[in-house]
Amino acid sequence: MANIEPRLLKGFRDYLPKEQIARSRMFEIIRSDFELFGFEPLETPVLEYEDVLTGKYGEEGENLMYRFKDNGDRAVAMRYDLTVPLARVVAQYGSQLPRPFKRYQIAPVWRAENTQKGRYREFFQCDADIVGAEIGVPDAECVALVERILLDLGLKNFAIKVSNRKILNAILQSVNIPDDKTVGAIRAIDKIEKIGAEGVVQELMGVVGLSTSDSEKLVSLISQKARTISELEEFVVENNISAAEGLQELKGIFSALDLLGVKRVEIDLSLARGLDYYTSVIFETILTESGESRKFGSVASGGRYDSLINVFAGKDVPAVGVSIGIDRLFSAMEDLKLVESQNTVDVLVLNLGDKFMDEYLKIVSELRQAGFSSEVYYTSGDMKKQFTYAEQKSVPLAILIGEEELKAGTVSIRDLKTREQIEVKREELVASLK
Amino acid sequence: MANIEPRLLKGFRDYLPKEQIARSRMFEIIRSDFELFGFEPLETPVLEYEDVLTGKYGEEGENLMYRFKDNGDRAVAMRYDLTVPLARVVAQYGSQLPRPFKRYQIAPVWRAENTQKGRYREFFQCDADIVGAEIGVPDAECVALVERILLDLGLKNFAIKVSNRKILNAILQSVNIPDDKTVGAIRAIDKIEKIGAEGVVQELMGVVGLSTSDSEKLVSLISQKARTISELEEFVVENNISAAEGLQELKGIFSALDLLGVKRVEIDLSLARGLDYYTSVIFETILTESGESRKFGSVASGGRYDSLINVFAGKDVPAVGVSIGIDRLFSAMEDLKLVESQNTVDVLVLNLGDKFMDEYLKIVSELRQAGFSSEVYYTSGDMKKQFTYAEQKSVPLAILIGEEELKAGTVSIRDLKTREQIEVKREELVASLK
Repeated sequence: MANIEPRLLKGFRDYLPKEQIARSRMFEIIRSDFELFGFEPLETPVLEYEDVLTGKYGEEGENLMYRFKDNGDRAVAMRYDLTVPLARVVAQYGSQLPRPFKRYQIAPVWRAENTQKGRYREFFQCDADIVGAEIGVPDAECVALVERILLDLGLKNFAIKVSNRKILNAILQSVNIPDDKTVGAIRAIDKIEKIGAEGVVQELMGVVGLSTSDSEKLVSLISQKARTISELEEFVVENNISAAEGLQELKGIFSALDLLGVKRVEIDLSLARGLDYYTSVIFETILTESGESRKFGSVASGGRYDSLINVFAGKDVPAVGVSIGIDRLFSAMEDLKLVESQNTVDVLVLNLGDKFMDEYLKIVSELRQAGFSSEVYYTSGDMKKQFTYAEQKSVPLAILIGEEELKAGTVSIRDLKTREQIEVKREELVASLK
Repeated sequence: MANIEPRLLKGFRDYLPKEQIARSRMFEIIRSDFELFGFEPLETPVLEYEDVLTGKYGEEGENLMYRFKDNGDRAVAMRYDLTVPLARVVAQYGSQLPRPFKRYQIAPVWRAENTQKGRYREFFQCDADIVGAEIGVPDAECVALVERILLDLGLKNFAIKVSNRKILNAILQSVNIPDDKTVGAIRAIDKIEKIGAEGVVQELMGVVGLSTSDSEKLVSLISQKARTISELEEFVVENNISAAEGLQELKGIFSALDLLGVKRVEIDLSLARGLDYYTSVIFETILTESGESRKFGSVASGGRYDSLINVFAGKDVPAVGVSIGIDRLFSAMEDLKLVESQNTVDVLVLNLGDKFMDEYLKIVSELRQAGFSSEVYYTSGDMKKQFTYAEQKSVPLAILIGEEELKAGTVSIRDLKTREQIEVKREELVASLK
């Protein structure tokens, strides 16, 4: 048979065990926190009818989607995010689901992104959403969930920035931005963390076409240093219904956040969020370790999107959700040395000779029975290979039994890091390991 | 916006929370046992180059594969199984991987199957494989792993049937089956559990074209009631090198199984396994509860396949693996009432009035801090809705606080199954729940 070159598609990744073990543990913590807050797991297919998945992401989204005709000539597409499948599920199953429907999903999605920007074409999304509940406590719970997850992952220095699209809209109105320039202005504002206030002013003048004074006024308004609700009340645009509503909503949410004991939260009116579908509360999370914020961007974000389910259900359904940026978070944790070298195997029984294999098998069987992940090295000889194997799998302990030990009824336990070794009685092995 | 009908592609499934919770717990037990035996997780992409995935499954496989051209006009395909990606990884990363490489992967695969046969087009595979270790202990470990997993899932009555292709080959030679009829004969034999010995004789005569006497001799040989190694030694075709080798291999494996404490294992020479790539040891697992075996077929199977990696590596690499049939196993467990109604939420704080919300939020925050998965019902009024919600999520406990409790500094805890209710002091809530 001709050899096929083993290779990956551009933008796709293998997760070899070392990384996958660490990723699994991160997922496990997140999943456990989702459940702690009352979210239940949902799983939807990777392939769906194309018309079910398209039409909600705009032209850009449709260009990036993996679409094709299946063997039955159906137009199908691969999952582009987890939100549209959720909307479909809510419309499709109706009263079979608890209401409000609090679900989480951790699953890969596919986008034919430009890989030169360092983007991947297959990546995991990690979402928790509450569908069918009006603004207030549910929104606060999504923010509280982010704090809890980041703390449980070992992060300490971060800020969850909260804003409300309604206030941003009022600010945009106050500088008389025409409707057709709103999206451009929001995109420009969204970059403030990356390109700074001066950069945003330039973009508002150049790309969006605002006057110098309007651009500066806008940036000064969104840069108000109101970090708390009471500070905000002094600033917010007066006599504007949208702003007043937005402020009222934020007040309720911050009150709930306080009762939920959430500390790492602040108001940031420069927050815009690129996506069109958010209707009021929005939030992002940045790491505040020096330099980390710009490097990684938002590691967890979300907001309220009351209209998205409309496309299937034919009516608005209130919804709020949060998305954990797994890849960014993992990179940041690696940078901050929060990802330790992790192992799944506790004990390796070294192989000092094939004639001892019967004894080795009895030992791994006992160890497993006692809950220790363990294995025996299958072939004897070449101790260097065996130690390399243990090192590659980050196994902490080795067990050695040879002629001497067998005669004496003992077992040697070796700490593979410190290289210390102790000898215990064979029948006390399990107890010693505990 | 025009309404889009929310619907699924034929052969694809949603897993709503009730089922997904139970499935996740099953996966969790399996994953934990994989790790107990020293296997590490690997994750590979869903999409790969078509030429990487094709060519190993025969024509049938290629027809069933989801294949298309991506936006860059590359011929790509969706993962068809987990074994070929493993072979690619072993060839691609070489010495970066521990050797032997013991990996597991639990992930969906896609096949455009005929859905009228009750087959799905998206389903999970759940594989553990050992690559780079010769026959013997590794094969026994795969079998031991199956026993451990099934026991941990609560199954008691099952049999792991083990055979060796080499012995089957010797038997086929002994009745002088021409080489071009071997595959047909193996396929016929593979159906013995389903269509019985007489059915296999008919198929060998009809489809494969053997003589009546050869067909009967063959079926009689594979139906030998040798269930142990010593019984087998009396039966096995004499003076055949292949048979002697196969017997020798089985002897080693059964000796290791004995030392590993594996009990539910027996020899079955009628075992054939459909797939072409097995080279010696093969095994299947059937449930022996009355009627379950025929209904569900094999729930866990595997064997040794020393040539599969050849296509990438250019040389044979010894490998043995096991695949857990998640869907069949889950159906069987449902039938046997081993899948309980499971919940992720421990406590629902009922909403007796919006004015108590502050207190409710403090309580859920405390409960979560103490590790109880809990939530508050967001809206007050309509108690029936709240109880329905609790029932849909199988929540075992509710907490009630109204005017009276608030004044008295107490909390009512209600067991939602028995409907019993107790009152405890507010500050003793967490302790009482423990």
